[in-house]
Amino acid sequence: MKILLSGCNGGMGKTISSLVAERDDMEIVAGFDSSQSPDSPFTVYTELEDVQEKIDAIIDFSHFSAFDKIVDFAEDKKIPLVMATTGLSQTDEDRLKELSKSIPVFRTANMSIGVNVLLGLVSQAEKMLQGFDIEIIEKHHNKKVDAPSGTALMLANAINESAAEKFTFTYGREGTSAKRQDKELGIHAVRGGTIAGEHTVLYAGDDENIEIKHTATSKKVFAKGAVEAARYIAVQKNGLYDMKKMLGL
Amino acid sequence: MKILLSGCNGGMGKTISSLVAERDDMEIVAGFDSSQSPDSPFTVYTELEDVQEKIDAIIDFSHFSAFDKIVDFAEDKKIPLVMATTGLSQTDEDRLKELSKSIPVFRTANMSIGVNVLLGLVSQAEKMLQGFDIEIIEKHHNKKVDAPSGTALMLANAINESAAEKFTFTYGREGTSAKRQDKELGIHAVRGGTIAGEHTVLYAGDDENIEIKHTATSKKVFAKGAVEAARYIAVQKNGLYDMKKMLGL
Amino acid sequence: MKILLSGCNGGMGKTISSLVAERDDMEIVAGFDSSQSPDSPFTVYTELEDVQEKIDAIIDFSHFSAFDKIVDFAEDKKIPLVMATTGLSQTDEDRLKELSKSIPVFRTANMSIGVNVLLGLVSQAEKMLQGFDIEIIEKHHNKKVDAPSGTALMLANAINESAAEKFTFTYGREGTSAKRQDKELGIHAVRGGTIAGEHTVLYAGDDENIEIKHTATSKKVFAKGAVEAARYIAVQKNGLYDMKKMLGL
Amino acid sequence: MKILLSGCNGGMGKTISSLVAERDDMEIVAGFDSSQSPDSPFTVYTELEDVQEKIDAIIDFSHFSAFDKIVDFAEDKKIPLVMATTGLSQTDEDRLKELSKSIPVFRTANMSIGVNVLLGLVSQAEKMLQGFDIEIIEKHHNKKVDAPSGTALMLANAINESAAEKFTFTYGREGTSAKRQDKELGIHAVRGGTIAGEHTVLYAGDDENIEIKHTATSKKVFAKGAVEAARYIAVQKNGLYDMKKMLGL
Repeated sequence: MKILLSGCNGGMGKTISSLVAERDDMEIVAGFDSSQSPDSPFTVYTELEDVQEKIDAIIDFSHFSAFDKIVDFAEDKKIPLVMATTGLSQTDEDRLKELSKSIPVFRTANMSIGVNVLLGLVSQAEKMLQGFDIEIIEKHHNKKVDAPSGTALMLANAINESAAEKFTFTYGREGTSAKRQDKELGIHAVRGGTIAGEHTVLYAGDDENIEIKHTATSKKVFAKGAVEAARYIAVQKNGLYDMKKMLGL
Repeated sequence: MKILLSGCNGGMGKTISSLVAERDDMEIVAGFDSSQSPDSPFTVYTELEDVQEKIDAIIDFSHFSAFDKIVDFAEDKKIPLVMATTGLSQTDEDRLKELSKSIPVFRTANMSIGVNVLLGLVSQAEKMLQGFDIEIIEKHHNKKVDAPSGTALMLANAINESAAEKFTFTYGREGTSAKRQDKELGIHAVRGGTIAGEHTVLYAGDDENIEIKHTATSKKVFAKGAVEAARYIAVQKNGLYDMKKMLGL
Repeated sequence: MKILLSGCNGGMGKTISSLVAERDDMEIVAGFDSSQSPDSPFTVYTELEDVQEKIDAIIDFSHFSAFDKIVDFAEDKKIPLVMATTGLSQTDEDRLKELSKSIPVFRTANMSIGVNVLLGLVSQAEKMLQGFDIEIIEKHHNKKVDAPSGTALMLANAINESAAEKFTFTYGREGTSAKRQDKELGIHAVRGGTIAGEHTVLYAGDDENIEIKHTATSKKVFAKGAVEAARYIAVQKNGLYDMKKMLGL
Repeated sequence: MKILLSGCNGGMGKTISSLVAERDDMEIVAGFDSSQSPDSPFTVYTELEDVQEKIDAIIDFSHFSAFDKIVDFAEDKKIPLVMATTGLSQTDEDRLKELSKSIPVFRTANMSIGVNVLLGLVSQAEKMLQGFDIEIIEKHHNKKVDAPSGTALMLANAINESAAEKFTFTYGREGTSAKRQDKELGIHAVRGGTIAGEHTVLYAGDDENIEIKHTATSKKVFAKGAVEAARYIAVQKNGLYDMKKMLGL
C-alpha cells in the first residue's frame, strides 16, 4: 500500500520513513512538509495540490498549524487519514469527527501500541482485583519537567473510570503519620539519567501482588503505532477509529 | 453466612479458619475431618450425618479419598459447594458436572485469585500484542522438584490457546547458535532460597516491552480464593462455576 | 555450640528457636523469660542465677527492661553476647561499649543480613557511580504508619556519607515544574497489601542503570541474623562487633 | 584536554565524537581512519605521521589490523592510550603490557562503566552472602546468536573466583526431577524484541533476596566508558590500567 507522509522532514517523520523502508507491505510514495528535502528517497511536496501519486493512506505527524490543509486534502481525495499530530484544538477534534462520516479517520491520544495495551490491561485488572491496593510508579529521564507523566495520569484516570468508588491520588508520602488511606492511589515519579519511559501499575493484595509494566526504550514506538494504524485504517469503512478499537480492547 | 469447612485440621484448613475469623460477613459453624480437634473454635465432626448446623456453603480442602462423602452430603442437603481438593479423577470431575445440575458448584484448577487474573490478562494481552516475542520467567524455592511450575505451563498453554499460530516451548538456551526462533516461547525456571512463587510473562517488541507479573508470598492466597468462592457460590443458581466466571474474565 | 536464648517466649524468640532446631552446629540449652513455658524443648528460667548449663553465647531478643539483668549475667559469667533488643537508651549502649572490653559483644541497628549487605553494596556503588542519579523506592504493607521506612533513610544517609557533595532528599514530585535537581535524591514510599518489605536503590546514568534491591518476605530474616551473629561472636576476642564487621564490609 | 580519536569514522567513533562535543573539559582535535571524512568537525588523518596537533590522550576504537600503527605512534610520541578495540591477539595484549612501562595504557574487556560496577558489586556480594543461592538472568534482543551472553559468563566466572567452593553452571531446567543442586548456578538467557541488554544477579536466601541488575539501553555506554578512561589515563603514571582500577573496585 502507498503512503503520503505529512511532516516527513521532522524527527518522527524520519523515524516513520525508516520503519516503512524495512517493510514489504507498504511504501512511502510522497512526502509533504514546509520545505523540500533533496536527500529524501521519495518526492517531498510543499503544496499538497502538486501530489500526483495514488495514495492509500495519509500519516500526519506534522504540526497543528498544517491541520486544515491536510484535512482538506484527505476529504477532497477521499483518502483514509491517520492524524498523529499533537496539540489540536477542540475545533480540530470536532472537524475530525465530522470528517469521519465521509472517510475513515484514525485518531488517538498516544500512538504507542504498548501504552494502549497497558491501558486496556489496567482497566481489565481493575475489574477483577477488587480490594487490591493500587499504586503507579513511573520512571523518566532527569530533564522531564512535569510530574507525574501524562501517561501515568491517563492510567490513573482509566482506573478511576473502571472503579465503583473513586480513588484520590497522592504524589508522595512522608512523615510519622503517613498511613495509606483506603481509596488512596499513590503515583510515584522517579527521575534519573536518560530513562525513556517506564510505567508500572502495582496491585497489592493479601500475600499476592500483580504488576503490569510497560517499558519504552525510544520514541520509535510512536512511529510504529502510526504505521500500524495506516495499514489498519486503509481497509476500514468510514468512521472514527482509535488504538483501542484497532487492538480490539 | 455459615460455612462447613471440610479438611479443617489440615494446614490449608487452619489458614481458611483464621482468614474467616477476621471477617464479619461469614463464620465457620462446623468442621469435618478424620479426627476430632478439641482446640477448634467450632465443632469438628468425623461423620457428616452428625452435622446439625444450618449451612450456607461448604468449602472442601480435604483429600480426594473423602470426595464421595462430601458430594453425597452436599447433594442431599442441597448446599452450595466449593471443591478445592486436588488430585480428583476424571470420574470425580464428571460427578461434579452432574451435581451442578442440582446445586451450585465451584471448581477451579488454581484457587489463587491473582493467578487467575494473571491468566485472564495474559490471554487478553496475547490478542493485542501481535508480533511481540513472549517469554515466561518463574521463580520458586530451591526445594521444588518440577520445572517449569504447573502455573507457568498453564500460562504458556493459555497463550497458545489465544494464538493464531502455535508456539513451541523452550526451557533454556546455550551455545553459539542459540538464536531465538520466530514462534519460540522460552520458559525459564529460576530456583533459589525460599521464594514462594513468582511468574512473569514478558512481551518484547520493537523498543517496547510489557511485563505482567504475579508474586505470591504465602499459601494464604489459595485459602483466600476459596473463601471468596464460598461467598460467591452461596448466592448463585445451580451450575458449574470457576474462578474465571467469578472474576468476570 | 550451646545457646542461652533470652526472650524465648516472644515471637522472635520462637522463630529463633525453630531456626536453631534445624541446625546441627548449635543448640539452645536454656531459655530466659518472665514466665515459664512448659511446652518448650529446653528449660525456661525466670531467674538467670538458676541457669546451670554451660553456655557458649547468649542471644537477647527480649525487652529493654531486662537489659541490666542480661548484661550483669554475661559479664559475670564471661559469655559472649548478641544484643538484639531494640529501644535501648544511650546509657545502655554505653554500657555495651564498656562491657566489650571484657567479653565479645555483638550489637547492630538491623539484624537482617540482607539489609546490611544492601547497605554495604550501596556505599560501594556510590563511590563507583559518579554522576549517576540516585533514587530509592521502598514498598511496604498498607498498615505502616511512617514513610519513608527507617531502612530507606539508613540507605539514603549511607549514600550521603560516601558522597563528596551531599544530596537533598525529596519525597515525591508533582506539578508542571517538578524537574529533578542535580543533587536531589528521590525517596518513594509505595504502600499496599501485605508487602513485608522491599528496598531498591536505582542509579540512573546515560543509557544505563544499576539497581540494587532487597526483598524480605518475613521477619524470620532478623532471627537468622541473630543466629549467625551468635555463631560468629562465640569465637571472637573481646570487643564490640556489628553486622558490617561480621560480613567483612 | 585534547584527544586523538582513532577509528573516528566508525559507529562507535561517531558516538564518541558526539559525546565529547557535549563536554567542556575535552575536545577531539584530530581523527585517524582509513579514509578521510570531509563532514567531520576535526581533521581526519589517514596517516598518523601527518598529525601535528598536541595530543593529551588517544582513544582507539578502530580495528585490530591498525593495532601496530597506533601503538607505534603512542609509544613514539609518549601519549597516554585507551585501547578499546576488540579481537586483539595475545601478542597484542603482551605488547600493551610492555608498552605500559613507558606510557600509561588503559585496557579493559568491557568498556561499559555500569557492567564493570556490576562485576565489582557481584564479587563483593558473593563474599557477604554465604549460603545464598545465586542465579543469573540476562535479557537480549531476538537476533543475538549466542547464549548466554559474554557478560553473563563474566559475571558467573567472577562469582566463582570469589567463591570458596565452585559452582557448576546450568542453562535451563525442565522435567519432574529438576531440583536445584546445592552448588548449582542457573544462567537464564531470555530473548525477545530489541532489548539492548539486561543482566540480573539474584541472591536468594531464607525469606530474603538481593538482586543486582544492570540495564543498558544503547551502545553509547561503551563510548562513555572510553571517554572517561581517556580523562583518567591522561593524568596517570606509566602502567597498565583497567576499568576496575579506574572505578576503585
